[in-house]
Formats: sequence, structure tokens, C-alpha cells
Amino acid sequence: MTKAEIVTQLSRALNRMNRFTAIALTGALVVFSTLAMAADAPMQIVMNPPKFPVPGTVSPEAQAILGRPIPDLSSIPLAQTRDEWMASKEFVATRYGAALPKLLQSLPIELEKASMGGVTVRVITPDNLAPEKSGKVLMNVHGGAYVHFGGDYSVLEALQMATASGYRVVAVDYRMPPDHPYPAAVDDTVAVYRDLLKNYQPEDIVIFGTSAGGSLTASTILAARDQGLPLPAGAIMNSPWSDLSKTGDSYFTNEGVDPKLSTYDGRLEASARLYAGEEDLRHPLVSPVYADYSPGFPPSMLISGTRDLLLSCTVRLHRKLRAAGIPAELHIFEAMWHGFSQVPELDEAQSEMNLFLERHLGGRTPG
Amino acid sequence: MTKAEIVTQLSRALNRMNRFTAIALTGALVVFSTLAMAADAPMQIVMNPPKFPVPGTVSPEAQAILGRPIPDLSSIPLAQTRDEWMASKEFVATRYGAALPKLLQSLPIELEKASMGGVTVRVITPDNLAPEKSGKVLMNVHGGAYVHFGGDYSVLEALQMATASGYRVVAVDYRMPPDHPYPAAVDDTVAVYRDLLKNYQPEDIVIFGTSAGGSLTASTILAARDQGLPLPAGAIMNSPWSDLSKTGDSYFTNEGVDPKLSTYDGRLEASARLYAGEEDLRHPLVSPVYADYSPGFPPSMLISGTRDLLLSCTVRLHRKLRAAGIPAELHIFEAMWHGFSQVPELDEAQSEMNLFLERHLGGRTPG
Repeated sequence: MTKAEIVTQLSRALNRMNRFTAIALTGALVVFSTLAMAADAPMQIVMNPPKFPVPGTVSPEAQAILGRPIPDLSSIPLAQTRDEWMASKEFVATRYGAALPKLLQSLPIELEKASMGGVTVRVITPDNLAPEKSGKVLMNVHGGAYVHFGGDYSVLEALQMATASGYRVVAVDYRMPPDHPYPAAVDDTVAVYRDLLKNYQPEDIVIFGTSAGGSLTASTILAARDQGLPLPAGAIMNSPWSDLSKTGDSYFTNEGVDPKLSTYDGRLEASARLYAGEEDLRHPLVSPVYADYSPGFPPSMLISGTRDLLLSCTVRLHRKLRAAGIPAELHIFEAMWHGFSQVPELDEAQSEMNLFLERHLGGRTPG
Repeated sequence: MTKAEIVTQLSRALNRMNRFTAIALTGALVVFSTLAMAADAPMQIVMNPPKFPVPGTVSPEAQAILGRPIPDLSSIPLAQTRDEWMASKEFVATRYGAALPKLLQSLPIELEKASMGGVTVRVITPDNLAPEKSGKVLMNVHGGAYVHFGGDYSVLEALQMATASGYRVVAVDYRMPPDHPYPAAVDDTVAVYRDLLKNYQPEDIVIFGTSAGGSLTASTILAARDQGLPLPAGAIMNSPWSDLSKTGDSYFTNEGVDPKLSTYDGRLEASARLYAGEEDLRHPLVSPVYADYSPGFPPSMLISGTRDLLLSCTVRLHRKLRAAGIPAELHIFEAMWHGFSQVPELDEAQSEMNLFLERHLGGRTPG
């Protein structure tokens, strides 16, 4: 896929304001991701044909995605310097700065930039916030391999969740590498959580995120717990990058199979190492699959797909939680990939998330 | 693997009466399965090297299994006639008739052969049946690709469950092909369930099974429901063969990856067609992933592994249940295969089953 094609695809996603509004948002997220990774790369990215037949057991939209050639992330030259990393991050900001305001205007939400615990956040409030939801809040930790999607873009998944669930969402714009490696991100998310606790009961807060945001959801709660803060009501972790080392079976079995995240080698590994900085990749707050959940962790929902490069990251974390006696539910979607989006399967995942929120926060989700 | 090696492996499994007693039982089940499939085959079975590195994220026992060459089930010549199928079934009975009594003697259970609803069953009662469990019962539907493991062997999984859960288990010795294709098996399991309802409340019954036994668990409940019988308290389906056609992504992605069930092609497909007889492979009681669960189905637990050839059969059924509003929980084990056994990971799965039984039957499981 050329950059031009990626741009076209992104614009298309952002402009589809029909029933796929919410879906397009995470669609954009994934496109951003691919793009950010390609930002400082030459135009040529190695494209591999799909390894397996397109399954008839998924939606037509998913079939279309699974039928396309898969960009080989290991073929993209690595950013070597701070400047190259910054350029990669800047590329997204410059190129797509114009798209977001239009998107925001079209959604029935209000977005307010604020500071909580010294950290930049964006508070997204649905226009018709139901009274029973006004005392509750979701905290979102964005994805992007710990390196991308800061700033204005940090709201994409939060916008989807606010629109689809009807809850207010606080999206954390945590500090990132290259200037701010671990533990800056966790320090920031914990600071925001601590600040939220001034206005909300812990049982009225759910934390959620996808990919790096999924593992940061876990790390935030673990760090907060270890600092003596009360646990939130729940955690939703979609394809959490719970192991930043190349450990886990699906890093191998789903290599070249996941249409979005083709391999750990190259960009993913570089992002992991940039984020971890001085820390071991298996530090329990860097790779929370190695953490101890038995002192306490809230009820959790984990989401992945059978073609997800991070399927093992997801099921290993699920087992870790269950082994510690934490009520954790798992949802694995047929042939879905890392952070699957732009497909009706995401509607189904969102329905499960709405049920989870209803069960753990007590508010009713929109029809 | 030669037949001699299979025999050695089986004997070893049956003789390991240490902490792996229960595990060895299903281990034997899988070995029986491989063997039954190889019964009328020449000594040579094509063995393929593992496609992927042995993951460090599973137990040493599992690593040993995942490091071995994988028997290619499609390399085994197919049984073409009734006699060849019967010979295949008989082979198991003759060869291993001696092993079972010894195994039974060593377990703290009592086994009684009986007839219920005109169907042969074996009732397995733990020696120290707890008073709060005496009014409850588990019904087991054995696996074996709808063709194998009838007769004495039908109790293998039931023995494991009775030993590990402390509940009484009724193992159904349902009729099978070639003489009795669909719907004989479902007729038999429903007849036993109907008979159980004379002595037990439906809320005191859980039905469970693995592989063909997992999908028969679903079909039994669906058929019983459609005949106006009340729903049992729960269903446990371990790697259910919910789609007998080669439909589902993991039939392709995990082909040659699952160390026990290498492929649908050949023996599995032949068994499916033999079982379905005149019916379409996608008849909803033949392949229960195509059934309608919205009129009612009990709380369910589904188990699989990321290397399971039937991973898609499992997650598709899970999604089908969830979409119908059925409380269904999913447990996917890192790098585990179809009906994984002889590994500590099965202990973990059994713990989840015990929790499920405790929750839905109210009895306490042994420490």
C-alpha cells in the first residue's frame, strides 16, 4: 500500500458517518498506526500475499481486508535517531491535523482539553449524557506502540467509546518516547487516575485501552494499587500488548497472518525498546503479563481475534488474571486481527463492552 | 510414530498414577484417538516437523509435545467399507481391553453399567460423594470423531471429571456409525437426559464433552429443548467440533500446527461424512454452530487453545451463544491443541470447570 493509498483509505474512513461512525474511528486509529510507522520510511513497503484463504465465516468487510496483501512491517527502515522518531510522530500531526476538527464536529459529543494531576487530558462528554451516567467516568489510555498518537489523536478510541457507550470519557495524553520513556506514561496515567478519584468513587470508574493502551490499562491499575489507591470498577483491554519481548506463541504463529500487525520484528521491537528505555522488557509494569495480580485487580474484559499477532499476549494475560482469582472474561473473534476495526465485528465487541460497563458501572447503555 | 510407539505411550499414560492421574486419562483418550484413526492404516504415517518454534510460555510437558513431529492425518488411507470401519473400531477394543480394568481399580470411584432410556450408560460415582453433591449429576458425552470410543472406552473423560470434580457422572455410550449415523447419537443422548430428569431436577444437571462430545453436548441440549424438555444447569464444551464442514479459519491457520489433530482432510472429513449420513454437514444438529440459540440454552463454558485445529469451531460457537444472549464463558489456553492433555494446563482447565460447576450446581469442589 502506498502512502497515497493509505491517505485515501483514511479519508474514506473519516468521512463514513453512517452506521460505521464509531467503527471508522478506530479504523482511522489503525490506519494512523500503519502510517505513523511508515512515516520516515521510503515509499516501498514489502507487501506479502495473504498466507491463508479468506474465511467465509467473517463479515464481507472483514473478508475484503483479509483478502488484501499484508504490509511487512519488518521491511520499514528503523528510526535511528531522536530526530527520526520525532519526524515520524510529527508526520501524522502535520498531515492529518485538518481531519480531526471535522470529525469532532460531526459527533454528538463535546470535547474539552484540560489538565488533571499535571497531565493533559481531553474530556469527551456525550451531548445527551444520561443522568445515571453523569456520576461515572471511563478513563482511556490510547494505543500506538507507546510512541504514537499523542496530542489531538489521543482521543480517537475515546470518541468511539463515548459515542457508543454514552459514558463520559477522559482520554489521557500521556508522555511518550523518545523524550519520555517508561515510567513517564505510567506516572501520567496514575496521576490522572488519582485526580479522578477526587471527583469519582473508584467503583464509578472503568479504565480501558487497545494495544499499548491495553497493557497501559493494566500497568496503570497495578501501579495505582501498589501506591495504595483503590481499584477501579473494571478494566477493558483490547489486544493488550502485555509482553513487549517477543515471547508468546502468536508472535510466531500469526506472523504474516495478522493484516495490520504483520510482525514483531523491526518497528514493533524498536518501539518496545525505545519505550522500555533502561528497563528490562519483562519488567512487570512494562510487560504486565509478568505482574502479580493476586494482591488485587478489578473485573476485566479481554478482547482479541484468532489472527491477532497479540493473541497470545491476550490469552496469557487472561489466564494470569484467572489464576489470581480475578473475574476476567475473554472474547476472541473469528479471524480478527490486532485492534480490528472498520468491520461489523467491532459492533459486536462494542456490545460486549457495553454489557460489561452496564454490569460493572450500573448505568444503562443506549439501545 | 509407529503403532508400537503409540502403544508404549498409551501404557505409560495409563500407568502414571501420580499427580497426573486425571490428566493421563484424557491423555489416553487422545492416544486412543490417534490410534483408532491409524487402526487400518499401514505402519507408515507421514510425520511432519513442527512448523513453529516450541513456545517458552507453556509447561515443560507441553513443550515436549510441541517439539515432536506431527502425524499427518491426511496420510492415513481411508476406511472404504463397513468392514474397514468396524475393524478400525474393533482394533481399539481388542488391543486395549486389558488396560481399563486396572485403571478403574486404581481410581477412587465405582463404575456401574446400566441402561437409561434404553441406552447403555456407565454411572461413575466417587467413593466419597459429598452429601451436597449427591442430588446432582453430570452427564458426559464422549468424543472420538463420532465414530470411536464407544463401549468400555466411553468412560475415559467421565472418569477424569468424576475424580477431579467429585460429582457423579453418567457417561453415555451412544450408538455410532457406520451402523448408526445421525440422528442415532442425538436420539440416545436425549433419551438419557430425559431419563435423568426423572430423578434429578434440570438445575442439578450439567452436560459436558470434548470434541465430538462437545458438539453433541450442544446438539443434545438443542434437541431436548426443541422437544420441550427443560434446560440443564449448564454445558461445558471443550474444543467442540461445532462445524463438521471444513468451514472456519483455524482449519487452515492451524493445519499442521495442532500436534494431535493435524488436518481436517482425510480421516476427519471421512468421519464427518460417515456420521452425517444423509444429512447435510451443516444441519444445525450435526454442526451446532448453525443452530439457533435464542430460544434458550444454559450457561456455557467453552475451552480451546491457540493451536487447536478447532479453535474457530470453539470461538464461533462462543460468539453464537453470546449473540443469543446466553451467558457463555471462554477459556483459550496459550499454544494448546485439540483436547490438550497430559499437561498441567489441563489442571488449570479442570479448575475452571470446577468453578463453573460450583457456580451452576452449587456444590463445593474438592480442595
